[in-house]
Amino acid sequence: MTLTMYERIGHEGRRPSPFSWRIRYAFAHKGITPEFRHVRFADVETIRALSGQHFVPIVTEGDRVIHDSWNIACYLEERFPDRPSLFHGVGGRGLARLVNHWADATLGAPIRRLIAADFILCLDAGDRAYYRNSREAVFGCSLEEYCADRPRWLAEFAAVVAPLERTLGEQPYVSGTAPGYADYILLSMFQYARLGCPDEFLAEGSALRGWRDGLVRAFDGLGDRYPGYPGVG
Amino acid sequence: MTLTMYERIGHEGRRPSPFSWRIRYAFAHKGITPEFRHVRFADVETIRALSGQHFVPIVTEGDRVIHDSWNIACYLEERFPDRPSLFHGVGGRGLARLVNHWADATLGAPIRRLIAADFILCLDAGDRAYYRNSREAVFGCSLEEYCADRPRWLAEFAAVVAPLERTLGEQPYVSGTAPGYADYILLSMFQYARLGCPDEFLAEGSALRGWRDGLVRAFDGLGDRYPGYPGVG
Repeated sequence: MTLTMYERIGHEGRRPSPFSWRIRYAFAHKGITPEFRHVRFADVETIRALSGQHFVPIVTEGDRVIHDSWNIACYLEERFPDRPSLFHGVGGRGLARLVNHWADATLGAPIRRLIAADFILCLDAGDRAYYRNSREAVFGCSLEEYCADRPRWLAEFAAVVAPLERTLGEQPYVSGTAPGYADYILLSMFQYARLGCPDEFLAEGSALRGWRDGLVRAFDGLGDRYPGYPGVG
Repeated sequence: MTLTMYERIGHEGRRPSPFSWRIRYAFAHKGITPEFRHVRFADVETIRALSGQHFVPIVTEGDRVIHDSWNIACYLEERFPDRPSLFHGVGGRGLARLVNHWADATLGAPIRRLIAADFILCLDAGDRAYYRNSREAVFGCSLEEYCADRPRWLAEFAAVVAPLERTLGEQPYVSGTAPGYADYILLSMFQYARLGCPDEFLAEGSALRGWRDGLVRAFDGLGDRYPGYPGVG
């Protein structure tokens, strides 16, 4: 049966969404190429009709519709037990769930503060008003105000990633000697920052930068398969 | 050969140190009872003579001297492979190292801000001047100033533990269905807060509180084996 992944795409094929990045890497880790179907950022109705909620990615296989990236990763792990494991044992699976929540809440917070005002250019021109209106309603201020205190959010970002830097100074991957889903969760946040904003937030020569760049190059350069920030490179 | 654990003890047998708590639980998980040797908090020289550095715990077995709690946990895992695993697979071991750095840096920061001024009463009266002087030199201010902005550090603590609360709302342990060393690392920080300060920081009815209290009761009530904060209970 064919696996299909629905993903949002933006301006001229850009794909900065962290939740889709972690699932692209999970598929690549399992050696499986799904069929990709594209929806526009503001096309909430297509997603809702399919899954009853409005987040992507969604993966379907036959009549099954799986949403929420964590559920998709677990589905792939159980559906393809003979392919390389995403979790490397039950302890790795348990702790990957913590990494998942930590990435979205703790690591995501300063990244959103650093990139939200730039991110809008990654979207199709027709989706930008939707993005601005929906985000500004949540933030309670303009995108530019949300991102205004840049020194504060750079310092916050540095503090938040410090445990990652220490860990990757001691072992090659967050999951240990081989990459696992926890690496892809975290990588997806740095892809979001890297593709959603023209700035580089990881210091040259840092363990974190080396780990990220290695994973960007993995799977035939998966992390660079789609265009980067508009106007860069 | 006998395993010996050197631990610092304070006022009338109190033991709030998070690094020793994670190793006490690691020993209990492996079903091994070491010989305990006590050193006073300010007795840096005994520790240094033994290990060349001044942190506890230290574990010795014959001529081997192992220090740094992470190294001790790994030593126990490799020395007793047939006992219950502390990591539940290679992925769990990799991610536990990240949890170790996260606990010390990110989770530890607001906890220190909340308890440092109270903590001094857990120490032997003869050790309190050492504690105050050494900490105030690091903090660059008095203990009381360091802890002064309590609403800020309570909010910071709540933000930092949010991913733990979400994780423990979805699975019984941070390591998954059974506790592992990552649970003991995190528990050790909450033991430090619980035994180092008269206040309760975890909300009644929260998943985090239920998880902590369950682990305090585990191994015949290991978490309550030593006296609590002076003047409480």
